[in-house]
Amino acid sequence: MSLHGTYDPQNIFAQIIRGNAPCFKLYEDEDVLAFLDLFPQSHGHSLVIPKNAQARNLLDVDGGSLAKVMAVVQKVAAALVEELSPAGVQVAQFNGAPAGQTVFHLHFHVIPRFDGENLGIHAAGKADPEQLEQLRVRLASRLQG
Amino acid sequence: MSLHGTYDPQNIFAQIIRGNAPCFKLYEDEDVLAFLDLFPQSHGHSLVIPKNAQARNLLDVDGGSLAKVMAVVQKVAAALVEELSPAGVQVAQFNGAPAGQTVFHLHFHVIPRFDGENLGIHAAGKADPEQLEQLRVRLASRLQG
Repeated sequence: MSLHGTYDPQNIFAQIIRGNAPCFKLYEDEDVLAFLDLFPQSHGHSLVIPKNAQARNLLDVDGGSLAKVMAVVQKVAAALVEELSPAGVQVAQFNGAPAGQTVFHLHFHVIPRFDGENLGIHAAGKADPEQLEQLRVRLASRLQG
Repeated sequence: MSLHGTYDPQNIFAQIIRGNAPCFKLYEDEDVLAFLDLFPQSHGHSLVIPKNAQARNLLDVDGGSLAKVMAVVQKVAAALVEELSPAGVQVAQFNGAPAGQTVFHLHFHVIPRFDGENLGIHAAGKADPEQLEQLRVRLASRLQG
């Protein structure tokens, strides 16, 4: 998949936005959705996406949608820090398959880092759904509450 | 350095903003500065920082400054794509030393990825200043022009 191309409305994140696919939802407002990554690189690995921008990547998105997404990226990072006390947090956003992008709807990764723990390889293993749900409840209560 | 702490106004990016340290400047407006990384992970590795927010990281920054920085992150990514035709672009932002942060003024990395080329290790080697200046001129003319 190249950097430029047509938005595919059947991508998995578009299906999640439409409610046609499930997600471990952390936060949602009119413009932005945040949820847990199913293949986490670390405990708490979260994703933040625009709901109303049909943007494959950073190059496609309008400025207003980008600003709203970033405000939620910041909120999610703060909730992860408060709830999980990581040593650090990485934010990452990939454009194009050679840069690591696998779903072609703009998304930001928010990845807690813990001392003495290397990052897992993305998509190397699916997380346990019960553990994800427990974590989801803790983080969602901070973000929505 | 922990995630929470006091902003050090002597950090190198603060010195660059004040004009007390040089940089290979790509773009500047009232709120945001973009420049080439001196220890690039790939050809075109750029940094984007807020000028008026004394923010150590993503947790500290106000929403308005963050939105302005992201608008320039997008501009720089587009300029890199147009000028260097990479296969992809990675955006990364590190919070806390264990997450890879080395300068404690909020900054976003914009890193072009080229086919068949792994990322260099950050700070493994300093770029040639003449090459950086040639690249700077090409990118700055796209961004300012």
